[in-house]
Amino acid sequence: MSQLEGAHMTAEHRATQVMEKIQTLASFSAMQDGILRAYLTEEHRQAHQQLARWMTQAGLETWQDEVGNQWGRKVAANPELPTLIIGSHSDTVANAGGYDGPLGILLAIEALDALQDTELPFHVDVVAFADEEGTRFQTTLLGSSPVAGLWNPALLDRQDAEGISIGEAMRHFGLEPDNVAQAARKPEETLAYLEVHIEQGPLLESLDLPVGVVTAIAGAKRFLIDVSGVAGHAGTVPLPLRHDALCGVAQMIATIEAFATEHEIVATVGKCDVRSAAVNVIPGQVQFSLDIRSQSQEKLDRCTQLLMQQLATIGEKRGLNVVHEQIYQAQAVPCSDRLQQLWAQVVESATGKDVCYLASGAGHDAMVMANLADMGMLFVRCEKGISHNPKENVQTQDVAVALDCLIRMIQSVSSYQTGTC
Amino acid sequence: MSQLEGAHMTAEHRATQVMEKIQTLASFSAMQDGILRAYLTEEHRQAHQQLARWMTQAGLETWQDEVGNQWGRKVAANPELPTLIIGSHSDTVANAGGYDGPLGILLAIEALDALQDTELPFHVDVVAFADEEGTRFQTTLLGSSPVAGLWNPALLDRQDAEGISIGEAMRHFGLEPDNVAQAARKPEETLAYLEVHIEQGPLLESLDLPVGVVTAIAGAKRFLIDVSGVAGHAGTVPLPLRHDALCGVAQMIATIEAFATEHEIVATVGKCDVRSAAVNVIPGQVQFSLDIRSQSQEKLDRCTQLLMQQLATIGEKRGLNVVHEQIYQAQAVPCSDRLQQLWAQVVESATGKDVCYLASGAGHDAMVMANLADMGMLFVRCEKGISHNPKENVQTQDVAVALDCLIRMIQSVSSYQTGTC
Repeated sequence: MSQLEGAHMTAEHRATQVMEKIQTLASFSAMQDGILRAYLTEEHRQAHQQLARWMTQAGLETWQDEVGNQWGRKVAANPELPTLIIGSHSDTVANAGGYDGPLGILLAIEALDALQDTELPFHVDVVAFADEEGTRFQTTLLGSSPVAGLWNPALLDRQDAEGISIGEAMRHFGLEPDNVAQAARKPEETLAYLEVHIEQGPLLESLDLPVGVVTAIAGAKRFLIDVSGVAGHAGTVPLPLRHDALCGVAQMIATIEAFATEHEIVATVGKCDVRSAAVNVIPGQVQFSLDIRSQSQEKLDRCTQLLMQQLATIGEKRGLNVVHEQIYQAQAVPCSDRLQQLWAQVVESATGKDVCYLASGAGHDAMVMANLADMGMLFVRCEKGISHNPKENVQTQDVAVALDCLIRMIQSVSSYQTGTC
Repeated sequence: MSQLEGAHMTAEHRATQVMEKIQTLASFSAMQDGILRAYLTEEHRQAHQQLARWMTQAGLETWQDEVGNQWGRKVAANPELPTLIIGSHSDTVANAGGYDGPLGILLAIEALDALQDTELPFHVDVVAFADEEGTRFQTTLLGSSPVAGLWNPALLDRQDAEGISIGEAMRHFGLEPDNVAQAARKPEETLAYLEVHIEQGPLLESLDLPVGVVTAIAGAKRFLIDVSGVAGHAGTVPLPLRHDALCGVAQMIATIEAFATEHEIVATVGKCDVRSAAVNVIPGQVQFSLDIRSQSQEKLDRCTQLLMQQLATIGEKRGLNVVHEQIYQAQAVPCSDRLQQLWAQVVESATGKDVCYLASGAGHDAMVMANLADMGMLFVRCEKGISHNPKENVQTQDVAVALDCLIRMIQSVSSYQTGTC
């Protein structure tokens, strides 16, 4: 018997409800066709008001925090008990789909609705983080960072495209910028942080699995790499006398692909610009980008160093000058081993299938919430791995499985807390 | 004893004179620093007037033909004798150097000056073709084509950047557009066509040789190749599930380089554009160009077909769609075997070194003059292979060698004509 049916409603019925609510949330959008819901906008306010109504219907106490995040609490009988936080984000990129973020919030509300009559040995907070994507102010995880105690007040001066600062936008929204730090939750009062999210990749689909257990949020480094050779006439310079920057870069890209496959890291060359390119000119200068990720920070650091040495060697052998500049980095954040085990148990029980463990290549609020408490994530299969796109799609039966897993997980965390797991 | 010294002037002295005249010609320019001398402009007129003066000083009869080319003739005693034509072009690209074209004209004038007292069994015409580069009207070999009997009157309507047609510009210059076809020379009256030109490549310099014998003007094909895969998130799509268009193109470029080396053809990928490129997006679409050349048309055709098959196979294996479009082609034009032999003999005699045979990767007036008569070319070493650039440079001692070779060659052609070679 599914855990859902114990609450007098079938898994399918609850999953269909979640899908309908996702459609409703999608209507709070600043653009048509695709979705655009940015931080501190009217759409943000309307979406959170709607979420608050659904939270109330699920028996939760609701409030908005100092950053503009929407919370709902299933209160335990004993107020001294710690809190399990489950959440995701309500904001979107431009031209977004409906599942990236909202699915995790709505599954949490639905799970607590199913558990309304179940007394738990902790409070459970559902949170809708108001700014994960950073669409309006080009920020990173602004909704969850203050909650995790990582607020940087200097951000208040950052402006959107119209020159409105975050501080001004907060005041206009009814928030007091000086109070943002008060959104911080206390580690000692926080049991754990859970997040369910669409995979945004094709792995689960390729394995025919509805859900997967996240092992870590991958660390990433990004580089711009400039390769300089000697430009020349495509007809008059024999191949052995060339220092063709693009041929060098082609070998480097092939090397990066082979290296990443061999070392099981993820590496992508997204940009490749030939300077002063012409059909009949040997490329003298090429700039390309490298994005390299791993769920292990140690492996990421080691592989990056090894790979850069290999690129330099290719340059030397070809008489090319190779210069790289690091333009971004994010530390790898592992998910709690204990929470991974619990997720795996509930996934196995719910699906009867082998469990897929996978790293998250994209960033999530869970990255910063790991500063506050143990963190665990569950990924839900999405069609063709497409995300950040109106074509983003998730199957109702997968939502039913994810919901079943989340309910089981909340109950498992009970034993986690009491150490009987 | 150098052939030059027979004319009571040292090789070095004559070479220095050629270098000075190149500086003088460089002053007829529409731009400063670099040179710009385009067809049917005031600079064209001034340069040709100067060339005519030098031709006269060398004892030549001068005239301008119906296209605006400048001619000078060393007249043989018997007017029934055929004519050896020696020439190159007087026009330039924008921001040009001084040697590309003028060197061949001035060497011919200087050679005939040295041979003023030598009776030859043919007329010798020196020609300064007025439009090889096509800088003003985006034409191809417009000066020499009518001379070789390849005039296309439809070109008269072609306009420059200011909307002035070739026909209008001809009239303004004092030429009658309806008479252009009359510039055609008769094959039966033409003994051969010779051209001395800077190499515009680095091969002779790399071999430490002042001159080299041209075997052919390479044929060329150009393609734009579109490769389509599947774009995706750089963090969330595992490598085995990717259809990364740029990784495919990198393998194709590496294959092109290896193929060209193996088959001894010249191939260049000059352009490589990633569509909607971003550091964190797997490239879904890439377009690159391919320029492929060979002195053998048969080899060019065969290698192109083979290479395209290899690129298609790479695409298939990676799940990429590969489409190519041919955007240009020029047939390979072989130099006369007999004239190559004669050039080789005079080069060996003049330099005492082994002879370097090399193909021309760039186009020359000799390509169309091959329609009129046997054609032979000599290349002169230029510094670092740099051309179409104010840094274009040639050493005076190499000019002396080239002049010595040309004088010997003119005398050798005497025996060529009489079949005693």
